[in-house]
Amino acid sequence: MSTSTGPDGAYKNLKRRFHEITLLETTGATLGWDQETYMPPKAAEFRADQLAYLTGRVHRLVTDSDVDRWLTVCEKDGPWEADSVEAVNVREWRRDCDQSVKLPNSFVEEFEKVASLAKNQWAKARADNDFSQFRDPLARLVDLSRKKADYLGYKESPYDALLDQYEPGMTVQSLRPILDNLAKAMAPLAREAAEKSLAIPGDLLKGDYPIHGQQKLNRRVAEAFGFDFEAGRIDTTTHPFCTELGPRDQRLTTRYDETNFAVSFYGVLHEVGHGLYEQGLLAEHYGTPMSKAVSLGIHESQSRLWENKVGRDPMFWRHWHPIACEYLPELKRFTPEQLTAAVNRSSPSMIRVEADEFFYDLHILLRFQIELQLIEGALEVNDVPEAWNSLFEKLFGRAVPDDAHGCLQDIHWSMGGFGYFPTYTLGNLNSAQLYQAALAQNKGLETSMASGDYTALLDWLQKKVHHQGMRFHPNQLMEEATGQPTSESAQLDYLKRKITHLDAGAAS
Amino acid sequence: MSTSTGPDGAYKNLKRRFHEITLLETTGATLGWDQETYMPPKAAEFRADQLAYLTGRVHRLVTDSDVDRWLTVCEKDGPWEADSVEAVNVREWRRDCDQSVKLPNSFVEEFEKVASLAKNQWAKARADNDFSQFRDPLARLVDLSRKKADYLGYKESPYDALLDQYEPGMTVQSLRPILDNLAKAMAPLAREAAEKSLAIPGDLLKGDYPIHGQQKLNRRVAEAFGFDFEAGRIDTTTHPFCTELGPRDQRLTTRYDETNFAVSFYGVLHEVGHGLYEQGLLAEHYGTPMSKAVSLGIHESQSRLWENKVGRDPMFWRHWHPIACEYLPELKRFTPEQLTAAVNRSSPSMIRVEADEFFYDLHILLRFQIELQLIEGALEVNDVPEAWNSLFEKLFGRAVPDDAHGCLQDIHWSMGGFGYFPTYTLGNLNSAQLYQAALAQNKGLETSMASGDYTALLDWLQKKVHHQGMRFHPNQLMEEATGQPTSESAQLDYLKRKITHLDAGAAS
Repeated sequence: MSTSTGPDGAYKNLKRRFHEITLLETTGATLGWDQETYMPPKAAEFRADQLAYLTGRVHRLVTDSDVDRWLTVCEKDGPWEADSVEAVNVREWRRDCDQSVKLPNSFVEEFEKVASLAKNQWAKARADNDFSQFRDPLARLVDLSRKKADYLGYKESPYDALLDQYEPGMTVQSLRPILDNLAKAMAPLAREAAEKSLAIPGDLLKGDYPIHGQQKLNRRVAEAFGFDFEAGRIDTTTHPFCTELGPRDQRLTTRYDETNFAVSFYGVLHEVGHGLYEQGLLAEHYGTPMSKAVSLGIHESQSRLWENKVGRDPMFWRHWHPIACEYLPELKRFTPEQLTAAVNRSSPSMIRVEADEFFYDLHILLRFQIELQLIEGALEVNDVPEAWNSLFEKLFGRAVPDDAHGCLQDIHWSMGGFGYFPTYTLGNLNSAQLYQAALAQNKGLETSMASGDYTALLDWLQKKVHHQGMRFHPNQLMEEATGQPTSESAQLDYLKRKITHLDAGAAS
Repeated sequence: MSTSTGPDGAYKNLKRRFHEITLLETTGATLGWDQETYMPPKAAEFRADQLAYLTGRVHRLVTDSDVDRWLTVCEKDGPWEADSVEAVNVREWRRDCDQSVKLPNSFVEEFEKVASLAKNQWAKARADNDFSQFRDPLARLVDLSRKKADYLGYKESPYDALLDQYEPGMTVQSLRPILDNLAKAMAPLAREAAEKSLAIPGDLLKGDYPIHGQQKLNRRVAEAFGFDFEAGRIDTTTHPFCTELGPRDQRLTTRYDETNFAVSFYGVLHEVGHGLYEQGLLAEHYGTPMSKAVSLGIHESQSRLWENKVGRDPMFWRHWHPIACEYLPELKRFTPEQLTAAVNRSSPSMIRVEADEFFYDLHILLRFQIELQLIEGALEVNDVPEAWNSLFEKLFGRAVPDDAHGCLQDIHWSMGGFGYFPTYTLGNLNSAQLYQAALAQNKGLETSMASGDYTALLDWLQKKVHHQGMRFHPNQLMEEATGQPTSESAQLDYLKRKITHLDAGAAS
């Protein structure tokens, strides 16, 4: 019997098929990157056709009956041990195939096309501060997402089916208590942080930061963290993101504010965290699940860890302050301690991507509640601005002045990404837990980081997270790396310590 | 009998199939654009895999036996008149299909992959001024191109098969006399022009031209010509080009020299000419031959016309000089007449893309002779630098200092584009002939252009060239538009007049 008919042959066929799928997916990612960065506006409609075509083709290749047949051979006769590379790949290909088969090809193409156009409509609506321009596309995407949930199937809530795409195994039932408990525990911390922060002027950092200097500084820190600019780059977009166009092609984006370097600086540190995860996936397994990120909650843990746990620690600015002054002389006004206080200053801000760590998860809670109601049919799209504004006032004690600062601020819904937001909070919790474990398991880690050497930290993250690909499911990965599944305790400990860093800001 | 089995159904199937092919081709063009503009270096290998895959997929879709079957039905039973949209599309699809079938799919993918990698190797070899780095890729591409010619078939020379890809119907036998005669007639003109130009200092334009000012000026002129920046953009690359990523997405590139605005200025005028052709193709036929450029020799006629016939005319600077001074104050030093003389200054330059119109076609003759010998097996790749340098000295009376200024200067061979260069000279001849016809057929055209209004010229070009798509073959298109096939007489008349514009440069 030739190997081509046995499990080895079937496995080879699957590898070849999913390599083809990877070529198409990364091609689509390249088109998507261009759409956000450089594409001229009139090209939007044709770009949507291209993306819909690529998505449809990928869908056809995954749902092709050959794939199911090859998978069945591997599952039945495969000689591989449970956690082996092959077993992991077969398991995840099966999940991919089974989920995809549930979605008709025409639906997948339609969803992609509507989402692709909606992104531009959202960008314009946000720029014009006019929700009415986004209402119809949003209604269409809510409808399509509810339909998608019906196709995929669920036990309790249609939202579960959507959430599961980003965070395998997560449900409303298990997520709600995490968010509620966290919000409850954080409320007194946030109050204390905001109160302490009153001593730090809100415009403390305001000054003259030429974009060119910001770019050089951002790049220097990114390189120190270990980001390889021969295999990636940074461009400018309204909504910063990181996208993977190939095994050695990680594209980050950011936005610049010439009066406040911290906007692009922490934006880049964040995206670099995502980029390092992708650059740390094993190239030898590229095109298979063993070289894919396990979930968005784990992906976000990497960006949060570098942005916040590393980049907002007092020892970070003790090392980087003199270097940063070379590129941005305005920073000479500050001591490292003042800088630390300023970049940790807490206040109930309007914009999620500018929120501090004490309030960030309240933003997520707000979005979660609204999108859950949209998907469960308890809220009409027309009523989103009002629902947003009233919930914001309740959670933050402030009024929203307009929709650009309210329900139009995020790109996610325009991409049909319902169920995505909660992974940000999971990322926060995971980042604290992983960072705590890294410090506990690596003697001298703080000493080396204090001198700007992040090799040991990156090595540990690569070993425990990046190199694992999809070997484990998220909670299992967290247990392997930290000894326990995702919990809020490390993040709460971290925030309690953080309050003490707010003291130096006032001493000017 | 249902229409789906008759010629109407077959035609619809063909339209759908070639729409799919267009989606893939424009996707590949987007990847190619990114490769030249923004892609990080380590991404090159995977990008080559993506491009080879897309090319292979297109090739499979064109050569699929269904296409041949649908074409046969249309050819046998199609009710369409000879020059109708449908007849033109069927004729050109047939040509595409028949040519493609001759090339094995594996060969097409291999060619694409080698060429994609060679582009980066060329760029590095040129930057390092080191031919040895490019020798092996070049040898590989020569071999593959000879093989391609064998697959495609030819009567006299394998070069004919390659040339025909860019200029349908053109052969070495018909091309050689055109190039030889032109070179012979131009020799005394070039001598006279170069001699007159001695009175114009070579560094007359040398000055301080901030890139930002250049960009604003270039854009303003491009807009005046009619280029739609909502459906296109300009980026920076080593080798300027124009590529079409969709019906409303024309990407131009240029390069900047802060000491000489003319490098980017005329580069942009040139690429804008290409872009206007693509923007002028009829969107209603997009994805079919009726909305495709007819040949490279016609394409180049559009870039040359706007760059040279319009942009280097004395009346051009009489209108634009005061406006240009707003963006580039350095230009206040000149009179419009001096500027005209400076941008028409003639000398035997080393670099093709910087060559003046009196010497340009000698550059083409040189490349034609070398690539003809390479493809016919009369010259070894190892001997290219020597052959180049000795031929250059013979034609231009100057020595080539190094390969970066010699055989490494052009991107074309690194893309496997043998047979491409001669279309530049055809473009020069066609541009003179079309411009002459436009002036003869449109009263008041010069008056409106003198005031910076190019609407009538663009309208005429759209009607005679752009809107025609591939309706006519190149020589027929030229006959329809100008009354005769491509000839050198208009270009020679034009150059004779041009010599008189060189006078003003000395009067400083």
